[in-house]
Amino acid sequence: MPAVPFVNCFEVPEGKEETFFALWREVNAYMAAKPGYLGHRLHRSLAPDAKFRFVNYAEWESTEHWRAAHDEGFRQRALGPEWEGISSTHALYEVVHTGAA
Amino acid sequence: MPAVPFVNCFEVPEGKEETFFALWREVNAYMAAKPGYLGHRLHRSLAPDAKFRFVNYAEWESTEHWRAAHDEGFRQRALGPEWEGISSTHALYEVVHTGAA
Repeated sequence: MPAVPFVNCFEVPEGKEETFFALWREVNAYMAAKPGYLGHRLHRSLAPDAKFRFVNYAEWESTEHWRAAHDEGFRQRALGPEWEGISSTHALYEVVHTGAA
Repeated sequence: MPAVPFVNCFEVPEGKEETFFALWREVNAYMAAKPGYLGHRLHRSLAPDAKFRFVNYAEWESTEHWRAAHDEGFRQRALGPEWEGISSTHALYEVVHTGAA
């Protein structure tokens, strides 16, 4: 079974990048220890004014693993008031077209 | 020099997925032949109502290659009226954090 990609696009207000990165690392460390987590790459835009300042591209073994990982411990780290002003647009995906040079 | 990731998030109205996919494949075939293109993965959301129905994750050799590829031939394929209703939010990125199980 192929990996299930999870893409999370973050809008982060100017000046809040370091706060975001610290908060995100805490959530990430928690999620990376969960069964079914395969890997991730966090991206920061080259342009500081890009709509999505950060994009996380993670891979999970299955939709079920991803769902089970979103437990109380996740919510405690990811849904507090310290995230105010930061928006997250995310979904699970399947790869439908690939290419390489 | 590491690859430069390019992330493109598409909003596609319900019922227009096949139209999008056909249009996107034409642009993609054109861009994949350009110097500096390294590879891509096009993703479709598992949930049909995800905000970004498609996400393309491409990699380029450099920002300069990416910029040079956006020429008249690109604009002819990517900016016509046949794209009406489809929105694209995109940027170039650098990878700032990685992990693997």
